[in-house]
Amino acid sequence: MTSPLPQLVQAAICRVVGPGPASLHEPRFVGNEWAYVKECLDSTYVSSIGKFVDRFEADLAAYTGAKHAVAVVNGTAALHVALQLAGVRPGDEVLIPTLTFVATACAVVYCGATPHFVDSQERDLGLNTCSLREYLGMIAEIRGKQCFNISTGRVIRAIVPMHTFGHPVDIEGVMAIARDFRLTIVEDAAESLGSTFQGRHTGTFGLMGTLSFNGNKTITTGGGGAIITNDPALAKRAKHLTTTAKVPHRWKYVHDEVGYNYRLPNINAAIGCAQLEQLPNFLATKRRLFDLYSSSFTEVPKTSIVSEPEGCRSNYWLQTLLLDESVADQRDAILAMTNDTGYTTRPTWSLIHWLPPYSNCPRMQLPVAESLEKRLINLPSSPALAE
Amino acid sequence: MTSPLPQLVQAAICRVVGPGPASLHEPRFVGNEWAYVKECLDSTYVSSIGKFVDRFEADLAAYTGAKHAVAVVNGTAALHVALQLAGVRPGDEVLIPTLTFVATACAVVYCGATPHFVDSQERDLGLNTCSLREYLGMIAEIRGKQCFNISTGRVIRAIVPMHTFGHPVDIEGVMAIARDFRLTIVEDAAESLGSTFQGRHTGTFGLMGTLSFNGNKTITTGGGGAIITNDPALAKRAKHLTTTAKVPHRWKYVHDEVGYNYRLPNINAAIGCAQLEQLPNFLATKRRLFDLYSSSFTEVPKTSIVSEPEGCRSNYWLQTLLLDESVADQRDAILAMTNDTGYTTRPTWSLIHWLPPYSNCPRMQLPVAESLEKRLINLPSSPALAE
Repeated sequence: MTSPLPQLVQAAICRVVGPGPASLHEPRFVGNEWAYVKECLDSTYVSSIGKFVDRFEADLAAYTGAKHAVAVVNGTAALHVALQLAGVRPGDEVLIPTLTFVATACAVVYCGATPHFVDSQERDLGLNTCSLREYLGMIAEIRGKQCFNISTGRVIRAIVPMHTFGHPVDIEGVMAIARDFRLTIVEDAAESLGSTFQGRHTGTFGLMGTLSFNGNKTITTGGGGAIITNDPALAKRAKHLTTTAKVPHRWKYVHDEVGYNYRLPNINAAIGCAQLEQLPNFLATKRRLFDLYSSSFTEVPKTSIVSEPEGCRSNYWLQTLLLDESVADQRDAILAMTNDTGYTTRPTWSLIHWLPPYSNCPRMQLPVAESLEKRLINLPSSPALAE
Repeated sequence: MTSPLPQLVQAAICRVVGPGPASLHEPRFVGNEWAYVKECLDSTYVSSIGKFVDRFEADLAAYTGAKHAVAVVNGTAALHVALQLAGVRPGDEVLIPTLTFVATACAVVYCGATPHFVDSQERDLGLNTCSLREYLGMIAEIRGKQCFNISTGRVIRAIVPMHTFGHPVDIEGVMAIARDFRLTIVEDAAESLGSTFQGRHTGTFGLMGTLSFNGNKTITTGGGGAIITNDPALAKRAKHLTTTAKVPHRWKYVHDEVGYNYRLPNINAAIGCAQLEQLPNFLATKRRLFDLYSSSFTEVPKTSIVSEPEGCRSNYWLQTLLLDESVADQRDAILAMTNDTGYTTRPTWSLIHWLPPYSNCPRMQLPVAESLEKRLINLPSSPALAE
């Protein structure tokens, strides 16, 4: 007689990470974090001006291959300003996945615009470029250089592909759609630092990309984020807008537009510099963890571990178990059993089009996202678990 | 033959703080900052969840006497959410001083509302309650429980008194106006942690008050802020809105309104806890610095050092030199000479109604603020200078 699925899943996790407890994603400070933080405190430069902010920006640019990086207070702030700089204005629509963290939608709303929800594809958990193209063919009309939603009359200004759990989206497909439908791409790479598509870092394909260094991310600054871009004028504008739009002057306080206090404190940037030094190690251990889970779950029927798409390299931020449709009704029992026994697991986010503030936003049919939401479980993913 | 005024001012500063250089306001980490930060790193709880966030909120409430404190990412974020919770909606007007840091105006704009600029009074550098009452008598009309601006037709929803450089505003006058004109008070106490009005802490008179812990403030968290209030329901709402409006659940990600990622990281809160322990010392040294400047500047004609208003206790965040009208034309020469010789001084902020994004906003006559702006110079104010 076979064990019930929840027990099989729990046993498979236990084979990989040991007897537990194991949290979902714990940061790891084994490098220069403490030395750099101490240097900050000793210098008293803990706030928005300091050498670690400059260095973190330079290091991020060097690592991702983007020409410029602008450090900000978190990934949500990065997305907000990137969308604003992408030209998103009140009354516009912005195409975003319904399967994403709520910040993607919030940032659209902060610009006074409306999220327009797009379905996902199972291969990479990202935007479904195939069904999106077909959908836009039906509901979009190009007039001049703008894309209009013929049913709402609004301009569809931008598209925000998100690299789910670190797995690169079909960015080539997204770029082709953006070109054909006159959409600006802002890449939500909050989860994909270290992930590449055909050798190029995620977040560098769009006009701008955004990163997050929240406590649960591959590297953390406590809270933090960044905008990356190859456009020097946009980088300058991003820096200006995120630092209260103050015009540089020896002593005058002049602000020439409505800016934001989205500055990353130097002390958080100091942690970021040290974490970035550790990133190659983190990526190696997270890849090893994927291998261990993949192998362990071969013994669990009707399940699979999501692996990086072809031609891509994933950072494997959150390891992801996918249940077959036939056992989707076991998801909550699996979540309960694993969490009850000390293994922190979670489902994906509630789909955004289901959330009260977004339930009336425009959307295409979302069958794949709705199916994935029922079947997806993130497993304990801390890099230390594979050491 | 007497020396020119810039030299006299420089000499008076030198008598107080020594040969320099002296920055405007440097933080001081001589307590448990290091120990608490190390505890954070060792525990790996550096991000938005952690015991220092809870402790910092409890400590702030205890210190200010507010029933509740909600820690957030900076003072601008605190104001934004406080105004939203005060009922400020798109199309409203909000009365704010023109003599304030630009964040006060930005927060109003983030709510979709329009700042409406109010004059200052010389005594405390805060809202001019006398001329404001007269002005509202002419331009405001109460209909139902709302105050309308009869020339714009918009609702004047709230008033934001700001405690300039730590000096308490005439909050009794503000409260009387708010009562008579049906305005909600949100106190911008970004600069006045440690300042009291008749024994009660600034920021606790309005429906909500907001604090800032930026690097240049009396205490710092790198970047940080807080909302304080006596209303438990508002505190709960503030916590919810500033933490992405996530509905608590063991594993589900449901967000029931459009929230903000305004969470203060635990590592920044850790610094805040240590800094708050030092606050009484900082206040004592800053008061001593005021005494030293006051005494030194008695020798400089046509100048005075701004002192705390009667019945108030100021934190003396930034020491403030006021020039007589007759020598106001010397301000820039004084700024140049002092900064050239290593003493960081600054004028006040450019008045907000002069800034391009706000030049068309409604305003009363602003003669006192315009006069103060010409004559005001902040002096080096770090607590260490009086040790």
